[in-house]
Amino acid sequence: MTAIDLNSDMGESFGRWRLGDDEALLAVVSSANIACGFHAGDPSVMRRTLANAAADGVTVGAHVAYRDLAGFGRRYIDAAPAELTADVMYQLAAIKGMAQAAGTQVRYVKPHGALYNNIVHDEAQAKAVVEAIAAIDPGLALLTLPGSTVGRVAEAAGLRVFREAFADRAYTPEGTLVSRRLPGAVISDPAAVAERVLRMVTDGTVVAVDGTVVPIHADSVCVHGDSPAAVEMAKAIRARLTAEGVTIRAFAAPEA
Amino acid sequence: MTAIDLNSDMGESFGRWRLGDDEALLAVVSSANIACGFHAGDPSVMRRTLANAAADGVTVGAHVAYRDLAGFGRRYIDAAPAELTADVMYQLAAIKGMAQAAGTQVRYVKPHGALYNNIVHDEAQAKAVVEAIAAIDPGLALLTLPGSTVGRVAEAAGLRVFREAFADRAYTPEGTLVSRRLPGAVISDPAAVAERVLRMVTDGTVVAVDGTVVPIHADSVCVHGDSPAAVEMAKAIRARLTAEGVTIRAFAAPEA
Amino acid sequence: MTAIDLNSDMGESFGRWRLGDDEALLAVVSSANIACGFHAGDPSVMRRTLANAAADGVTVGAHVAYRDLAGFGRRYIDAAPAELTADVMYQLAAIKGMAQAAGTQVRYVKPHGALYNNIVHDEAQAKAVVEAIAAIDPGLALLTLPGSTVGRVAEAAGLRVFREAFADRAYTPEGTLVSRRLPGAVISDPAAVAERVLRMVTDGTVVAVDGTVVPIHADSVCVHGDSPAAVEMAKAIRARLTAEGVTIRAFAAPEA
Amino acid sequence: MTAIDLNSDMGESFGRWRLGDDEALLAVVSSANIACGFHAGDPSVMRRTLANAAADGVTVGAHVAYRDLAGFGRRYIDAAPAELTADVMYQLAAIKGMAQAAGTQVRYVKPHGALYNNIVHDEAQAKAVVEAIAAIDPGLALLTLPGSTVGRVAEAAGLRVFREAFADRAYTPEGTLVSRRLPGAVISDPAAVAERVLRMVTDGTVVAVDGTVVPIHADSVCVHGDSPAAVEMAKAIRARLTAEGVTIRAFAAPEA
Repeated sequence: MTAIDLNSDMGESFGRWRLGDDEALLAVVSSANIACGFHAGDPSVMRRTLANAAADGVTVGAHVAYRDLAGFGRRYIDAAPAELTADVMYQLAAIKGMAQAAGTQVRYVKPHGALYNNIVHDEAQAKAVVEAIAAIDPGLALLTLPGSTVGRVAEAAGLRVFREAFADRAYTPEGTLVSRRLPGAVISDPAAVAERVLRMVTDGTVVAVDGTVVPIHADSVCVHGDSPAAVEMAKAIRARLTAEGVTIRAFAAPEA
Repeated sequence: MTAIDLNSDMGESFGRWRLGDDEALLAVVSSANIACGFHAGDPSVMRRTLANAAADGVTVGAHVAYRDLAGFGRRYIDAAPAELTADVMYQLAAIKGMAQAAGTQVRYVKPHGALYNNIVHDEAQAKAVVEAIAAIDPGLALLTLPGSTVGRVAEAAGLRVFREAFADRAYTPEGTLVSRRLPGAVISDPAAVAERVLRMVTDGTVVAVDGTVVPIHADSVCVHGDSPAAVEMAKAIRARLTAEGVTIRAFAAPEA
Repeated sequence: MTAIDLNSDMGESFGRWRLGDDEALLAVVSSANIACGFHAGDPSVMRRTLANAAADGVTVGAHVAYRDLAGFGRRYIDAAPAELTADVMYQLAAIKGMAQAAGTQVRYVKPHGALYNNIVHDEAQAKAVVEAIAAIDPGLALLTLPGSTVGRVAEAAGLRVFREAFADRAYTPEGTLVSRRLPGAVISDPAAVAERVLRMVTDGTVVAVDGTVVPIHADSVCVHGDSPAAVEMAKAIRARLTAEGVTIRAFAAPEA
Repeated sequence: MTAIDLNSDMGESFGRWRLGDDEALLAVVSSANIACGFHAGDPSVMRRTLANAAADGVTVGAHVAYRDLAGFGRRYIDAAPAELTADVMYQLAAIKGMAQAAGTQVRYVKPHGALYNNIVHDEAQAKAVVEAIAAIDPGLALLTLPGSTVGRVAEAAGLRVFREAFADRAYTPEGTLVSRRLPGAVISDPAAVAERVLRMVTDGTVVAVDGTVVPIHADSVCVHGDSPAAVEMAKAIRARLTAEGVTIRAFAAPEA
């Protein structure tokens, strides 16, 4: 039976500010990337999100980031590797302990935003992140893009690495993401997106912007939930996949 | 053989800013109250301080605080209990995981500054802190003032509680601290302070501001290290105690 | 012709997080209390909000607060008066300069949240806020509750002081607000609220929770905009007032 | 009579943390680059530093920075230009208003740390900073490196631009700074440094690392004060210059 993981960012509220419909998303996805307080999420939000994920049986990942609330972790910061290692260790330790208190376990790490993008190619920061994971818990898996530097570094360090695809993003003929600055980079029709995800899962391919069919390997598919439309799209993807007999299952579940 | 613990605040640097001579203090004390990032201490400072404490065999405590870098945790904040519980859980989880990565263990919790003072009497915030400790690790001890509300609440929750005295502070005939706003509240002569600590340890008494002799129970004596003079005083206390045959030993050491 | 000012909090988004429908509110109110970055609002949000207020001819007030993004300025902080004075000076100077760059002027100061509430009775912090206003611009008016300590202190310092009423809050027979912790403290029916505001404006009275009619003086009426329902209520109030021939006009307009 | 400006960073303490000996430096320099709260400096520190600069007749500059207390503004942040403009406007407005309250005036802008370095070549961020200066006060001068992009952009926008040299840094034969990563980049002998500054001022030249004599134009010379040794060096420079008849005078003084 075919199975795939759906992951989404969660716990990105902060203090008075709400972001995303986490409760709706927890009914859709199998893996929750939970903010750790550096780009979003405060301890109260983390505690509530971890409890909800535990109650819904959704696998928990640590959504670690640069220290940048004002920029929501979306701005590259030229952090020294040793400093970045400590920052990621702190976030991982915090969410790991709070997850245990909530009756669940952190299973994987998905870096957020600019950090996610930067360590696709920046070896020094990639090594810093991998060092942090290995120091806090080498049993944690890493979720990243196919072909990324951080994936290679993590595997060399003995970590398990999983790759993700993006439900609503256009791909180049080379199998990379079309830059958000280019037209057509983001696909907004839920039915079309659901169809693409189904193809990724059952066929292992995606149709690139130029029409060519490109092989794509995904252990997980990232869906968004930071707007009502995004939640609707996530629901449409899940409905389509399950209607076609695909099981939604966490890549990093204990028994996986 | 008589023994006592000496504790001191550490890891209170932040980013570019240095505070305290932690290396000198680690040679003096048996317990290090290490800042967890909310009033002071960033992840890099925490990592270095934990590694140094581990290398020197000094027992590690979590110096948890209100979220207030600008005020150094010295301002009372009317935080809701649930919010405070989450904030303390986050700090405890972070330092606990980082301590393990540094090859040591967090053994106790000493709240910092305004939080320390407030939960001496504020039952709602006291319960919030105790709930956080119990949720993250009920094996952690609590270090507080004799007669405090948080001590009573913690014992009722099954936590081990230890009491501390202050080396350089004057006491009232009732055995409480003389307010810092009153003259004579702080004693600055190292020899006099060393003499007072010796009396606390060997005799279980302190001479109050009015000359009466007051019984005092101390599992630990707090010494300061945030100025060169404070480090000198800490050294003088240790030298005097050891010269008199008193062993300096952590109250929360593994074998204690 | 009868006239009243309607004021509302604005510019309370921060970074990625949106809060309130400022554009809708700017069409309703005559005075905008704009966050200055300490409880909410970042410089980009401030700049945009100031430009929009200028474009819509809405008078600008400085919504100064304790330094507490995590608590949205709703937690009392035991800040020393000198520190609070400097914090408020910084906020006032920042918004004043940015308002000028946006082609408008800051006309008044309305403290936010816990600071607003605390200086109703705390004389030391009230004096600290008044000192800040006088230091940055003694031409700025103060908007506060009737009978507040800060109002008295501000008038003694030569500042102009205006009083506000709350559209959707129940009043005691003594003319003070019913605590939010009591049932019935907040009135949610837009028609009922509009009727109350009309009575405040045309009759100078409000019906208290026990049915007695209480005199109330309001230079401005505070309406909320942090939810779709709040915006609808604000619109209903304006519609009712204008239908009854009441002019909506800023209390602190240049020509006032 | 020959004259030169000496400038130094100041007001870089934050909350509990002290940095630099501002009082000693104010007796040495003619221009103070005062932190505005984004990389260092809180409102209380700013207020005190501005008052001291006013009392000592030292000209005030705004030391604006990326929003990064944890990194002390020394890390490049990929801030969007519009966001950077707003951040710099906020800082400039805040210090301008607080300077007026302290009885002085901000005369110039010297960007700090990573922002200073980045806009030497990054045109988008350079334009963002210049736009902010022009929006808040086009009478403010800019202090930057010779040949910088931001200097060119500022002059094109009609701002006055001044160039600075560094007292204790080695220069390449091309007249640029030797990278701090290379040996010999920083000169630590006070007498040698004083000699170099005298040559810059009286001769308009500096001896580069390879021994060649390079022309250098400096409206101001930057001296450091973040350590006791740095303060001693600053004093040595001033003493040597005045002994040789050079006047220490602010480049941006009102009458300049």
